[in-house]
This record gives sequence, structure tokens and C-alpha cells, in this order.
Amino acid sequence: MVGKKEIKFIKSLRNKKFRINNNCFVVEGKKSVNEFLKSDYKLVKLYTVSKTIINIDKQEVIDKNLLEKISFLKNPDDYLAIFEFTKPTKIRKNNFIVALDSVSDPGNLGTIIRTCEWFGVNDIICSLNTVDCYSPKVIQSAMGSVSRVNISYLDLKKYFEDNKSCLVGTSLNGNSIYDLKKPIKKGVIVFGNESHGVSSKLQEMMNIKIKIPKYNKSMYPESLNLATSVGIVLSKLMKIS
Amino acid sequence: MVGKKEIKFIKSLRNKKFRINNNCFVVEGKKSVNEFLKSDYKLVKLYTVSKTIINIDKQEVIDKNLLEKISFLKNPDDYLAIFEFTKPTKIRKNNFIVALDSVSDPGNLGTIIRTCEWFGVNDIICSLNTVDCYSPKVIQSAMGSVSRVNISYLDLKKYFEDNKSCLVGTSLNGNSIYDLKKPIKKGVIVFGNESHGVSSKLQEMMNIKIKIPKYNKSMYPESLNLATSVGIVLSKLMKIS
Repeated sequence: MVGKKEIKFIKSLRNKKFRINNNCFVVEGKKSVNEFLKSDYKLVKLYTVSKTIINIDKQEVIDKNLLEKISFLKNPDDYLAIFEFTKPTKIRKNNFIVALDSVSDPGNLGTIIRTCEWFGVNDIICSLNTVDCYSPKVIQSAMGSVSRVNISYLDLKKYFEDNKSCLVGTSLNGNSIYDLKKPIKKGVIVFGNESHGVSSKLQEMMNIKIKIPKYNKSMYPESLNLATSVGIVLSKLMKIS
Repeated sequence: MVGKKEIKFIKSLRNKKFRINNNCFVVEGKKSVNEFLKSDYKLVKLYTVSKTIINIDKQEVIDKNLLEKISFLKNPDDYLAIFEFTKPTKIRKNNFIVALDSVSDPGNLGTIIRTCEWFGVNDIICSLNTVDCYSPKVIQSAMGSVSRVNISYLDLKKYFEDNKSCLVGTSLNGNSIYDLKKPIKKGVIVFGNESHGVSSKLQEMMNIKIKIPKYNKSMYPESLNLATSVGIVLSKLMKIS
């Protein structure tokens, strides 16, 4: 039996503050829930409408109406689970790392995490003001990838100062990604905010600046979607290397 | 003075049925409104909170509360305009065309339209069941590109039968886009639904099948975001050609 207090608690996890205070977050949908169950994240509780998942404790069958009440989705799937946070593991520096500076759209962040996993990027480092990767919209658009990619929030400037590596920044003044002659074997690829790009204090630190050139030189469109840009750059760099 | 009936009318344009019945749609945000004003779309009426736009008839200054009431956005910009539909122009076949089969997510469609414009694709053809490009979410995520890219809704199978051209389909069984030896100079690049890909009746018609290979062969992630895939494929094909 799920009481009022429990319902209120689940709904409160929409907010970062409550997620941090309670050390947990919500995952929805059978596929994503299953992927988190296979990961290092510890299940707190699973709510399911139809059938329970075999070999899992801490689950409760609830009716559809209740699920719709506690769900963050317009069309909720039959599974909603609460998981405990895990601490990010040590950042591995022997491959590409993706750094995100002030990314604000949760749908973009989720898509970027999924794209990073596709291209074999295991570590994402986010500026402290980047949207929280445990927000429901990020979890939803990342389609389970949050359970496998190592995501750390830190002071990017300090990290770059303390960890010398090749910094590749996206910039309007960069060189075309199609003209890169020398393969980049490892390093940090830095993407910026949806409207403002990589902040100027970080731009100064970049060793290589790249851009995705526009087909024609007309004014429009002003930019590409950020998650799309990440896909294009990773596709190009991973292939070159 | 904006009356109740007018408010109801604007809000009704959230639905495709009402857009079609009234031959018009909503554009929000100063940037997008300005881009539509420069296009062939005819303005029906502009609602603005702060200042009117110079040299434009049919505008009304309203207060912020009213704008929030009629807006489709969580954080409305100060401009909301209604434009009349235009008929799509004739499809140009001397370049790449992007075909979308049963695309269902409006955010994806908007991002795809914006990406197409970036890479110089002027014509997009959509299956009849693809989400409407005049839906508010599409207009929003396309960032003005709907005003410049020629988008037609048609029976894709019939179009492919009637218009012989090189059909390039994305498929799990396709060849890696990185292994394409022969440049593809023109043709139709076909992308499918977010969950089911290109439908089997269209798959049979493809001349070339391509895929974006995954970095490692593990099970996850199962797929890339559709709009990201479109960006990666266009970036690769446009560069080869």
C-alpha cells in the first residue's frame, strides 16, 4: 500500500534539492529500469503495474492510476523505480573525455550521454552549473546510458589546470572538423552552452579549436542543436583516430 | 483588446485539426517570428508584450499575463505570431533530399529540419504519418528553419516509384558510413521511425543501405537518437560528395 507521504516523496524527486537530500532519483520505463538494475546503482524500490520483475526484492504492484499520479511522463510506462546515487568513479584519461560547460537543456544532456556511450566515451565531466544528470528528463532521453557512463560534476577550469591533456574546444572561430589532418588520439573535447558556447575563460585554455562548417554561408540557421553537434564531432574524431 | 474567443482560437492551434481547418499556425519567440516575417509565410497577427515590430501591420501589444495564457511554452518569449500556411514548392531533385518515414517526436523533427538546412538540404519529404511540421514543438526546436526548408507530406512509396533516384536507407544491416568508397552525388536519404526504423516496404526499395557503427559491440546503447543520426549521416555524406 502506497500512502500519501510516499507519493509526495516520489514526486519531490523531480527537484534536484530533494534528490540530493534523499540521495536517490527516479528511473522510468521497463528498458531503462532493467539497465539500471544490471548496473552498480542500488535499487531503493520498484513500482510496477503489471508484473513484478523476477529475483528482485523491494517491489510493489500498484494500479495504473497511481502510476500515472507518481510518474513524470505524459505517457507513463508500467515501471517506475527509485535508485540510490553512486559516486562517480575515477576519470580514465587514456581515451577521449567529453567536457560539458554550462549545458542547460536536460533533453540535450540525455542525448549527449547516449551518444557518448555509442562512440565509446566512458567519461563525461560537467561544469557545476550543467543540468543535473539525474533529472527525470535526462534519465529519459539518455535511455539507460546514465547507468553506464561515468559522469562527474566539477570545476572545469581547475580540472584543466590540474590535468594536462589536449583540450579540443568547439568554437565559431575554429578550424573545420573536415580539415583536421593530424589524428587526435586522446584528450578532452569541450562543448559549451546551447546559446553561448564554451565560456571565454575556458576558450583561452583550448589547444585546438574546431567547428562544424555550415553548407552555405548564409545567415541561417545560426547554429546546430548541441546534441547533434556532439554526435557529428564524435563521429568525425573517433573515425580519424 | 483580445477577447475570450480569440484566446480560445489561438490555443486551439495546438491541435493539427484546428491548424488545418484554419489554415494557420503559431510561431513563438522574437528570433523565429522575425525569420518567418522575412519568408513567404503571410502574417495573420502578431502579439507582442514589449514593443511592436517596425513596419508590420496586424500587431497588438498585450500584457505579459495574457501572453503566458496563450503561449505553448513554459517560459514564453515576448512575441507570439500566427502565420498562414504556404503550399510546399516543387521538390528539387538535383541535390540531396531527406525522406522521413513515420517520425513521431516533434522535437526530433524540428532538430532534423534545422540540421538539414545547416547541411544545405532544401527539401524534406515526410510520410503522411510523420508528425506535423507546424506543431508548436517542431516550430520551436527548428529555430526558424521551417520558414526556409521546403517540407512536403506525401506517400513515400509512391514518390519513390514515380521518381527514380538513388535511395540511401539507414538500416541495422547497412554498410558502415565510414566505409563508403564511392561518393553519392545526389539522391534521397531515408530515415525511419525512432523505434522501428525505416518500414520494411520501403527498405526493399533502397539502393544503398548504410549504418552508423557502434564503437564497441556491446548490447548498449541500443540506438542513437534519431536527430543525432541524421546529423552524423549528413555530415559524412555531404563531406564525401
